[in-house]
Amino acid sequence: MSTKVLVVGYGNIGRSVLKTLPAFPDLELVGIVSRRPQETAAEVGNIPVFGLIDGVESAAFDLDVDVAIMCGGSRIDLPEQTPAFAKHFSVVDSFDTHGKIQDHVQKVGDVCRANKTTAHIGIGWDPGSFSFMRAIINSCLPSSKAHGFYGLSPDGGLSMGHTNAIKEIHGVVDARQNTHAIQEAIDGIREGTKQDPLDGEKHWRECLVVVAPDADKSAIHDTIVNMPIYFAPYRTVVNFVTQQELDKYQGNQAHDGLVIGTGPAGYMEFRNVWKSNPDGTAGFMLAYARATHRLNSQGIYECRTVLDTAPALLLADPSTRLSLV
Amino acid sequence: MSTKVLVVGYGNIGRSVLKTLPAFPDLELVGIVSRRPQETAAEVGNIPVFGLIDGVESAAFDLDVDVAIMCGGSRIDLPEQTPAFAKHFSVVDSFDTHGKIQDHVQKVGDVCRANKTTAHIGIGWDPGSFSFMRAIINSCLPSSKAHGFYGLSPDGGLSMGHTNAIKEIHGVVDARQNTHAIQEAIDGIREGTKQDPLDGEKHWRECLVVVAPDADKSAIHDTIVNMPIYFAPYRTVVNFVTQQELDKYQGNQAHDGLVIGTGPAGYMEFRNVWKSNPDGTAGFMLAYARATHRLNSQGIYECRTVLDTAPALLLADPSTRLSLV
Repeated sequence: MSTKVLVVGYGNIGRSVLKTLPAFPDLELVGIVSRRPQETAAEVGNIPVFGLIDGVESAAFDLDVDVAIMCGGSRIDLPEQTPAFAKHFSVVDSFDTHGKIQDHVQKVGDVCRANKTTAHIGIGWDPGSFSFMRAIINSCLPSSKAHGFYGLSPDGGLSMGHTNAIKEIHGVVDARQNTHAIQEAIDGIREGTKQDPLDGEKHWRECLVVVAPDADKSAIHDTIVNMPIYFAPYRTVVNFVTQQELDKYQGNQAHDGLVIGTGPAGYMEFRNVWKSNPDGTAGFMLAYARATHRLNSQGIYECRTVLDTAPALLLADPSTRLSLV
Repeated sequence: MSTKVLVVGYGNIGRSVLKTLPAFPDLELVGIVSRRPQETAAEVGNIPVFGLIDGVESAAFDLDVDVAIMCGGSRIDLPEQTPAFAKHFSVVDSFDTHGKIQDHVQKVGDVCRANKTTAHIGIGWDPGSFSFMRAIINSCLPSSKAHGFYGLSPDGGLSMGHTNAIKEIHGVVDARQNTHAIQEAIDGIREGTKQDPLDGEKHWRECLVVVAPDADKSAIHDTIVNMPIYFAPYRTVVNFVTQQELDKYQGNQAHDGLVIGTGPAGYMEFRNVWKSNPDGTAGFMLAYARATHRLNSQGIYECRTVLDTAPALLLADPSTRLSLV
């Protein structure tokens, strides 16, 4: 029997989830929730589309849905939408503000326990598969500490969370944030010469920003570089560009990353190389949607992260798992 | 409160487990079981050492032990010893014959259910972390199939299981099996030109063998190259060498491996580079010993693989897990 999913939010990730769904024949799409239901309906054809009232209420609440795939942004959308939807359905989101994971788990978990729903939050490649690897490295490789790197290719990689954070600034029309790994820091970990670099020693952040004609560029620059968690700890370069210049990047959603840890026994490293960052995230969200519904069917009502769930639950057919061992 | 562990078998892996234990302050060693208790006792000093009767009975059965770490070989030792010890204690082993995992899980699981013990079998880097990655890749990266490669460095890598299989042949005095990855197969997967190579297209096997003076080299050669699962599917080169020539490799237990899968969204790859292959395996076995005892304390009596257990259970303090997400 298929698992009925609802896609909530129709931006980069929502589009990728729709595109990736056919590869998960056990999942059945029952509708899309969008802030712009008419535009979305025109784009997606005969899939039912529902609006979103005040960001958190929707006519979709009346649907028969097993799991809502929450595809909004981490700064504004998900902190409100994930708990709101978890009152009605089990949920999966890709909340990616590492410093606020604890609050989000608590808030969503309270809703799940009260409403007999199940959640996986922070699903994607980081948080997600990289969190997994941090746990494996830190626990199974003695005397190591896992570190993540992003944007190892010369062009760096698009960070969607950071791009959205810039786009939300008053006066910003469009933006793109390319993250660049600092190679010396990776070499230091592999060689064991500097196993524990600081955040600001590992990456720098390149911001391409299109502003409104009357915008205060200096104020926007300062807002970006001083934004806590997102930009303040890093060397951040803000380049104001024209929409035309930014549009050259259109369709380029490549990104890549590496988690690495070194100990006396050797080192482990895990690399994701995405042609499309949101497509990569979508695959994880859909596999965890399966797991979420399975747990809910077992009467497990709580909010989890990737660290709380056994990998076998992600498989299309968990009974085949021993063939992968 | 610490978890009391018993080390069963004092070869390569047993030695590495002993060496790695101090990095797991929550685990307390209560004894070692060895086929050669006097020699082992002389080597380890004041750790209690117990003998092994008929390969499966031991005076250590009277000890107060939470988890027995089974460090024997996969062909002869573990199929008998893991179920025998699971009658008395929870167990972790590194059983690595992929084709026989299903039988082993069934046999050990029956013992666990009957005796209220808990097991993790197939623990190490492959089976182990590589199994994990196969499950993540196959479930979260649509249209991909995970492949493992071993011995990517020019010297290849020591395969302990295959080395032991050669050593068990009549007339063989000593041996070493270096596995070599075939680079063209890795490139084919990354580039998407050949995503599903056969086993024999991915690796070749180099066997260095020291034989007794009167041994039948031709028969030994044929026994090796025709050994099912271990050698038959591969291009296998058998080189007869002197003990002196083989001894040049002494102490070199390096190995490395890669799991990779490619889909339309991009690719994921996970690499382990070990200075010491058994030291790498030991770290996994000790982290899973923690998880095994935790599950047993929760009343979960069954035989698991890495695919059945959530990563948080491996951490020294699972309550800190959200800091890794």
